[in-house]
Amino acid sequence: MSGPASGATRQEQERSRVTRQKLMAAAIEVLTEQGWAGATTGAIAERAGVSRGACQHHFPTRAALVAAAVEHVFHQQLEEIARRAKGLPQSRRRVEPLLNLLYDVYAGPLFTAATHLWVAAVADEELKALLLPLETHVGREVHRLTVQLLGLDESDREVRDAVRATLDLLRGLALANLLHDDTARRRKVLAHWARTLEAQLTPTRTTQAD
Amino acid sequence: MSGPASGATRQEQERSRVTRQKLMAAAIEVLTEQGWAGATTGAIAERAGVSRGACQHHFPTRAALVAAAVEHVFHQQLEEIARRAKGLPQSRRRVEPLLNLLYDVYAGPLFTAATHLWVAAVADEELKALLLPLETHVGREVHRLTVQLLGLDESDREVRDAVRATLDLLRGLALANLLHDDTARRRKVLAHWARTLEAQLTPTRTTQAD
Repeated sequence: MSGPASGATRQEQERSRVTRQKLMAAAIEVLTEQGWAGATTGAIAERAGVSRGACQHHFPTRAALVAAAVEHVFHQQLEEIARRAKGLPQSRRRVEPLLNLLYDVYAGPLFTAATHLWVAAVADEELKALLLPLETHVGREVHRLTVQLLGLDESDREVRDAVRATLDLLRGLALANLLHDDTARRRKVLAHWARTLEAQLTPTRTTQAD
Repeated sequence: MSGPASGATRQEQERSRVTRQKLMAAAIEVLTEQGWAGATTGAIAERAGVSRGACQHHFPTRAALVAAAVEHVFHQQLEEIARRAKGLPQSRRRVEPLLNLLYDVYAGPLFTAATHLWVAAVADEELKALLLPLETHVGREVHRLTVQLLGLDESDREVRDAVRATLDLLRGLALANLLHDDTARRRKVLAHWARTLEAQLTPTRTTQAD
């Protein structure tokens, strides 16, 4: 199992993984800067330092490439949030820093690229067909993570609606942050919403714990 | 004052107004369908049935044209909301239908076009310079209308933050609605948000009225 042939295969697999990652990182960069119209396969391959042939070998269409890139970066961000959340207090004081952490999912390097894609998909059926299942998946994952990090009981309808509202709020805040640094205003809004959430959610949890 | 010359001037002014409106309507349409990259002056003038020369006479650059178009349609939407809000009850039951009405500002025909513009401006300094003051203006106007329609006292910090959060939520909901009809989920979120707002805002107002 450790002969030269399998060694070469492992090396090939590693090279293939590195190439895919370069292409996905380049796709997000080019999308962010030039939008869907400018993010051609050629432009992405060039940015990645990869030949167009190799690009097409890994991703048959540019829509498949950018959808894979969005999903990949999104999962990296979720992992980072879960990791950083471990350092937060376990008490009610957890809510506000958690909201700020979750905001990073929406407003990270992915947001501008994803917004370009989503808005282009309004008039592009092929892209829309790729993004809709991705949107459902991404939405579920971030909802599940939020419920888990806030230590909530999802069977409660009020909890579900409060978490939905929280994620819609974060999405709106990320959009407001596109053209200028909106941090000062955002902190006030998130502090306000954290107090609201604490008041709404804590009694439910106490009742359930009794 | 009513001689043939001033009659001709009025006719010219009316023609000019109609041409501007055609160009602005076409700009929103082409932006929605093709994004900033596709919304060239030529494409917009063709859609409006106006010559490129006439287009340039009214709007020296395409950035000036689309910024004027966004502002124009935005004001039309604000007027429509103010008009429709007159039919709403004056009681607390006003909050939820008002939120649904305000949602229309964000998710109307303007939203896709504006999102294309905002995301393109991230990497386009000229466009960004035009949109930033427009964003400030639009944000203030919709904030003022919301405070007024909800009958709130803006000097209260909690009120200001609650209204800010509400508008961020509506923006996030509009983004969630881009690719598919999100109405069923949105109604739940807005119903939840309306109950929260009622609970937060009514006691403050009662205290102030005492």
